[in-house]
Amino acid sequence: MATTVENRIGTEAKVLQSHLGGKWQAGAEQGAALLNPTTGETVAWASSKGLDLKAAMEHSRNVGGPELRKLTYAQRAEMLGKIADALAARRDEWFEIARKNSGNTKADAAIDIDGSIGTLKYFGKIGAKLGVAHMLRDGSPARLARDQNFQGLHVGVPLDGVAVHINAFNFPAWGLWEKAAVSLLAGVPVFSKPATSTAWLAQEMVNAVIDAGVLPPGALSILCGSPNDLLDHLQLGDVVAFTGSADTAEGIRQHPRVRQRNIRVNIEADSLNAALLGPDVTPDSPAFGFFAREVVREMISKTGQKCTAIRRVLVPAEQAGAAIDAISEALRKVVVGDPANATVTMGPVVNMTQRRSVEDGIRRLKTQADVAYSSESLAPVDANLEKGAFVPPTLLKTRSSGEAELVHHVEVFGPVASVVPYRDKEGAFALARRGGGSLAASVFSNDTSFLAEAGAALGTTHGRVLLVDPSIGDSHTGHGIVLPSCMHGGPGHAGGGEELSGLHGLWFYHQRVAMQGAAATLTALSQQAADPRD
Amino acid sequence: MATTVENRIGTEAKVLQSHLGGKWQAGAEQGAALLNPTTGETVAWASSKGLDLKAAMEHSRNVGGPELRKLTYAQRAEMLGKIADALAARRDEWFEIARKNSGNTKADAAIDIDGSIGTLKYFGKIGAKLGVAHMLRDGSPARLARDQNFQGLHVGVPLDGVAVHINAFNFPAWGLWEKAAVSLLAGVPVFSKPATSTAWLAQEMVNAVIDAGVLPPGALSILCGSPNDLLDHLQLGDVVAFTGSADTAEGIRQHPRVRQRNIRVNIEADSLNAALLGPDVTPDSPAFGFFAREVVREMISKTGQKCTAIRRVLVPAEQAGAAIDAISEALRKVVVGDPANATVTMGPVVNMTQRRSVEDGIRRLKTQADVAYSSESLAPVDANLEKGAFVPPTLLKTRSSGEAELVHHVEVFGPVASVVPYRDKEGAFALARRGGGSLAASVFSNDTSFLAEAGAALGTTHGRVLLVDPSIGDSHTGHGIVLPSCMHGGPGHAGGGEELSGLHGLWFYHQRVAMQGAAATLTALSQQAADPRD
Repeated sequence: MATTVENRIGTEAKVLQSHLGGKWQAGAEQGAALLNPTTGETVAWASSKGLDLKAAMEHSRNVGGPELRKLTYAQRAEMLGKIADALAARRDEWFEIARKNSGNTKADAAIDIDGSIGTLKYFGKIGAKLGVAHMLRDGSPARLARDQNFQGLHVGVPLDGVAVHINAFNFPAWGLWEKAAVSLLAGVPVFSKPATSTAWLAQEMVNAVIDAGVLPPGALSILCGSPNDLLDHLQLGDVVAFTGSADTAEGIRQHPRVRQRNIRVNIEADSLNAALLGPDVTPDSPAFGFFAREVVREMISKTGQKCTAIRRVLVPAEQAGAAIDAISEALRKVVVGDPANATVTMGPVVNMTQRRSVEDGIRRLKTQADVAYSSESLAPVDANLEKGAFVPPTLLKTRSSGEAELVHHVEVFGPVASVVPYRDKEGAFALARRGGGSLAASVFSNDTSFLAEAGAALGTTHGRVLLVDPSIGDSHTGHGIVLPSCMHGGPGHAGGGEELSGLHGLWFYHQRVAMQGAAATLTALSQQAADPRD
Repeated sequence: MATTVENRIGTEAKVLQSHLGGKWQAGAEQGAALLNPTTGETVAWASSKGLDLKAAMEHSRNVGGPELRKLTYAQRAEMLGKIADALAARRDEWFEIARKNSGNTKADAAIDIDGSIGTLKYFGKIGAKLGVAHMLRDGSPARLARDQNFQGLHVGVPLDGVAVHINAFNFPAWGLWEKAAVSLLAGVPVFSKPATSTAWLAQEMVNAVIDAGVLPPGALSILCGSPNDLLDHLQLGDVVAFTGSADTAEGIRQHPRVRQRNIRVNIEADSLNAALLGPDVTPDSPAFGFFAREVVREMISKTGQKCTAIRRVLVPAEQAGAAIDAISEALRKVVVGDPANATVTMGPVVNMTQRRSVEDGIRRLKTQADVAYSSESLAPVDANLEKGAFVPPTLLKTRSSGEAELVHHVEVFGPVASVVPYRDKEGAFALARRGGGSLAASVFSNDTSFLAEAGAALGTTHGRVLLVDPSIGDSHTGHGIVLPSCMHGGPGHAGGGEELSGLHGLWFYHQRVAMQGAAATLTALSQQAADPRD
C-alpha cells in the first residue's frame, strides 16, 4: 500500500481504500472498524460512503472487459501465474494480517492464503491448455439437417459485463482469488466486495497485485465497506457470485435489478454438512480413527468457520458412545488462545457478534441435544476472555435423532458439531438429506460397494461427496477443503450454486450459444475456440 | 379421452380434466372457457378448483420418480420412442384440435405437433446411447493429490424431485413434450401445467400417452386450469421450467418457496429477436432474397406467435427501402382467415385478449415508427372480423433508429415486425444488443468472415445465432425453429435459461457432484454412469 494508499486518519489503524475506476479512493467517513478478534482492538477502518459505484462499474465494463478479452485464454492464464507469484512473494505479511484481523493460526491462514495462491496457480496451469483462443467450444460442428453443409456448434462467448464477487468474512484471500481466477481467465473483469470485517487482507492483496502491474487497467476492482447501491447498476452481461448467509442471498435474488434483468447469480450459502460413519465400521477398524480425526479437524480448523465444515456427525446408534469418546479425547488436546502463541491450536472466531451468535446457536441446539463434550472452563492462552471472541470446542448429541430438527437447520458457525445416531443406512441417508441441500458430505467405511452406494444416495443433495476407505485415510484432501479441480456448491439450503470444477467453471462467465451455419462459417468460428474438455 | 374422462357438464364443449396422483380428476367448477379463435365459440372448459396439488406432487415425487429411476437411460429413451409412436398414430386428431383451439393452419400445427413428435424421437435415439446407466459422468476419474489412489470424478445424479413444467399458450404440444422428453430421459417425473387457453391439445395428448401404457405410474401428470398453490409445495430436488411472460417469470422467481429453498428454475421469457442483413448484401444478391423470405416466414408462421420470431429487422440504411419493398411484396400474398380453408396462409391469434394486446402493441410502436406495410382493410376468408381474433400482418419502420427505444422493449406477439436501419456493422451489433438478451438472431451475408464476426459479437447476448450465406439459403432450418440438438434459451430479457441442447440438456435435471475417493470406489461409481459427450 506504501505507494498508492495514504493513511488519512490520524490513528494507528489503517484506513482501507477501494480500488475503483482504476484508482484508489477513500470513503467520505471513517466508517466501520475492523477488529483483532483476540484483543478487540481496532486494526483498520473501512467506508465506501460517497463512492461513485456506477462510474466504477462502467470502468470495469467498458475498459477492463475489452482489455481482458483482447488477450487469449493462454495469455490470461499466464497473468494468473504472475498474480500467484506476486502474492507468494509477500506471504508472511498476509499471514500476519490473517492473524491480526481474523484470529487465524498459521494452519488456518494457510488454508486461506496458500489455498488462494494454489488456486491461482492451478488455473494458470490448466488455462494455458486453452491456448490461442477467444471462445470456448463444446464439441465439434455437427450436421443439423439433410444438407451436410448446414451445421451446428455450441460455443461459449465470454460475457461482456462485470463479475461482481461478494465474499464472506471467513476466507478474505481464498474467496477473493478462487472467484477472480476463473473470472479473469474467462476474460470478465472482477469487481470484488469483501466482507467488511476482514477486508484488510483482501485489500492489501489487491494492492499488491495492482502494484505488480500484471493486470490490464480495469480488470480488478475492490470495494471496501458497504455495497451501497452496487446492485442497482447491474446490466445485461454482468454476473453476481455470492458467498455468505442465506438471508443476504435471498436479498440478492429479490433485488429488482437482478429479478427484472435476469442477472446471472451464483449463490453459496449456509450448509449443514454431514460426516457419516458407515454401518460396517467398528471402533477397532482404521476407518473409525480416520473418521474421528476428520470430525475434530473440521471442528477446529478456522475455529469451525468454514462453510464446508462438518456440522452433523452421523453414526450408527451402537457406535455413538465410542465416537463421542474418540472425538472428545482429541478435543481435550485443543489449545485455545492467541494465535501468536505457537502452542495455540485454535484461535477466536472473527468477532464478538459472531461469538454471541455461536453461543446462541449452541443454546438453541441444546434444546434438542445434550452436551457430549465441552471444556469445563475456557481459559484462552495469552488472551482475555472478556475481550477476545473465544468459544470452546463443543460436541453435542441429539436426544432423539428422529425428532431433532434444529440440528438440520441451524448452522452454528464455530467449533461446534452434533452427533446424530442413526439406525440403518437408509436412515443415515435420510438424515443427511434433512440438511436441505449441502456443500459437502463425507462417508467413512471399509466397504467399497457401500461407499459407492452412499455416493449415489447423497449425490442428489450434495455438491461434493468424499468417500473414504482406509486406503486413502491419510492421503485424502479432507472433508472441508475445496479443491480448484472439483465443483464447489450445493443445492437447496447451500444456495444452488456451482463454482470452480476446473475449466468447467468457466461456463458461468460465458454465454452458451448454439451457432448454426454453413460448414465454412462454423469452421471459422471453431478455429477461434478451445474445448475445455480437450 | 373415451375411456377415462367423462364429459360431466351438459354442453358440447369438452370439460378438461387433470391427471394427478395417477387418476383423472375434474375441478369443482366449470372454470375457464377455451375458445376457437376463428369464431369465438367455446370448445372446452378447464378448472383446477379444489384439486389436491400437494398430494399430486407427492405422488409424482414418491411414486413416479423412483419408478422412473429404476429404469436405465436406455430404457427411458425407448419409452420416449413409444410416446412418439402413440402420438404419431393420432396425428390427424391433434391437427384438428390445433385448428379449433389455436387457429392453426396445417403448417402452424406441424411446427407444434410434428415438432413435438420429432423432439421425442430425437431424445429417444440419442438417449439410447447412454445405455445401461443410472448417472451421468463428466470425464473419467482423475488424480487429486500426490497419492495416485485418491481421485475425483464429476457425476450427475438424477434429481429425486418433481419437474414442474409451466408452458405457454403458443406451443401446447411442443412445449409439453420438449420439456418432458428431457425430464423423463433424466428420470425425473413430469408435472405439466399447460396455458389454460390452449390446454385441450396438451390434455388429449397426455391422455393418449397414459392410455398407451408406456409410462410407469406417476411419471406424467398434467394440471389443467389455474396453478393455484402448486408452487407452495416445491421441495429440495424439484425444479421449475417455465415458458411465458416476463411478468409471470418474475412471480415465479419471487415466490417465497422458490427463493427460500433455492429451487432450480429455468426461464424462457419474452424476446425481441433480430434478423440482420449484412452490410455487404445488395438487393441483387441471393442473400437478400433469403433474408426477405425468412422475415416474412417468421412474421406469418403461427401468426407471429413464436417466442423466437423475428421482431426487429436490422438493415443497412441504404437498403431499407429495398428490404421493405421485398417484404411487403410477400406480405401482400398472405391470405388471412379460417385455417379450415386450404387457401388461408395465416390464421387468427389465440384469442381476443391477445388480438387487443397486438393492436395495442402496434399503437405503441407507432409512436416511434411508421407503418411500412399493412393490408388496407382486413377481410378474413370464411370468418367474421367481429368474432375472430384476426390481425393484419404489419411491417413498421422506426423513424429514428438511434432514438427508437420501444422496438427493443415491446414484444408484440403477433404478425408484426419493425425495420430498424443501421449505419455500420458496429451499429447493427449494438442495436441487436439493445433487445436486452434474446433467444435467437439470424444474420444474412455473402461474407463468411463477417458471419463469423457477427456470431461472436451477437453471441454474448443470444442463445442461438443462425448465420446464413447463400450456400445454405434453402437448406437451413429457419430463424425461429428450435432444434432439439441445439440450445434454446437466451440471457437477460429472454429469461436467462437453457433448454434442450441434446444430451447436455439432461444436466438441468441432475445434481452435479464432485465425487472424491479411492480409485476402486470411483471405478464402481463410474461403471454406473454414462458420459453424455461420448
